[in-house]
Amino acid sequence: MTLTFEDFPVGRFGTFGPRHVTREEILEFAAEFDPQPMHLDEEAARKSMLNGLSGSGWHLCSLMMRMMFDGFIGEAASLGSPGVNELKWLAPLRPGDDLTLEVDVAEARISKSRPDTGIVTFRGVACNAKGEVLCEMVSPIIISRRAGAQG
Amino acid sequence: MTLTFEDFPVGRFGTFGPRHVTREEILEFAAEFDPQPMHLDEEAARKSMLNGLSGSGWHLCSLMMRMMFDGFIGEAASLGSPGVNELKWLAPLRPGDDLTLEVDVAEARISKSRPDTGIVTFRGVACNAKGEVLCEMVSPIIISRRAGAQG
Repeated sequence: MTLTFEDFPVGRFGTFGPRHVTREEILEFAAEFDPQPMHLDEEAARKSMLNGLSGSGWHLCSLMMRMMFDGFIGEAASLGSPGVNELKWLAPLRPGDDLTLEVDVAEARISKSRPDTGIVTFRGVACNAKGEVLCEMVSPIIISRRAGAQG
Repeated sequence: MTLTFEDFPVGRFGTFGPRHVTREEILEFAAEFDPQPMHLDEEAARKSMLNGLSGSGWHLCSLMMRMMFDGFIGEAASLGSPGVNELKWLAPLRPGDDLTLEVDVAEARISKSRPDTGIVTFRGVACNAKGEVLCEMVSPIIISRRAGAQG
């Protein structure tokens, strides 16, 4: 069964994870995309504003994307996203963190330009095992409407 | 020489790249973080809204981060970023694209809470070789002021 626009009413959608994040994957992502000392060098990271090794914010976003994929986007008639409305990095991603992702539907509306699709705006909040909020993201995703829905 | 807050006045900062993007890295990123068919499956991608294989928007952001690192963040006294103010995915990242990144300083102000630092808001625009804009991103970065600057 494929999830369509109609399956995403405004309100709480679900909680996904936990997703364990290893030191090795934090270092690997940083080496490829964001080799700032606080993401790659233990000694420099200890002296940084974040007081220890932390994952790149872009790594955290990419992990949240994967958690959303595994949670529901992989089963949804998703056509893609035009961007991100809000993105806040609130606390550092640490080696060994177990991430959970809480997802709400903030808005759901039928597309004016493509009335066989809808735009579902998700709000995702990633937390660690202590319940600290690491990242808040608000992002619209274009999702097909149920077959035959055109009104 | 380390770049400090004072080195980022409002206005055009520079153009970075080109950065060649291979099909293999698009598929590798998608398999790990965003395995939607339009990012991973040639046949499904041809039938998608994007009319062919495209890189994940999160891959594009991560590549832009790396281009900014190589261009100036690696030499700057960067302390991290609280998030992203604007992020628009405007056209698909394609296998074989050569990305360039144009960077402006949209705003630069001294931090009220940490007056030895400043907040520099960058606007980055990623284009392909044809000059099509793929992504626009506006993001603040916290950067140390020159040693002794406290006023």
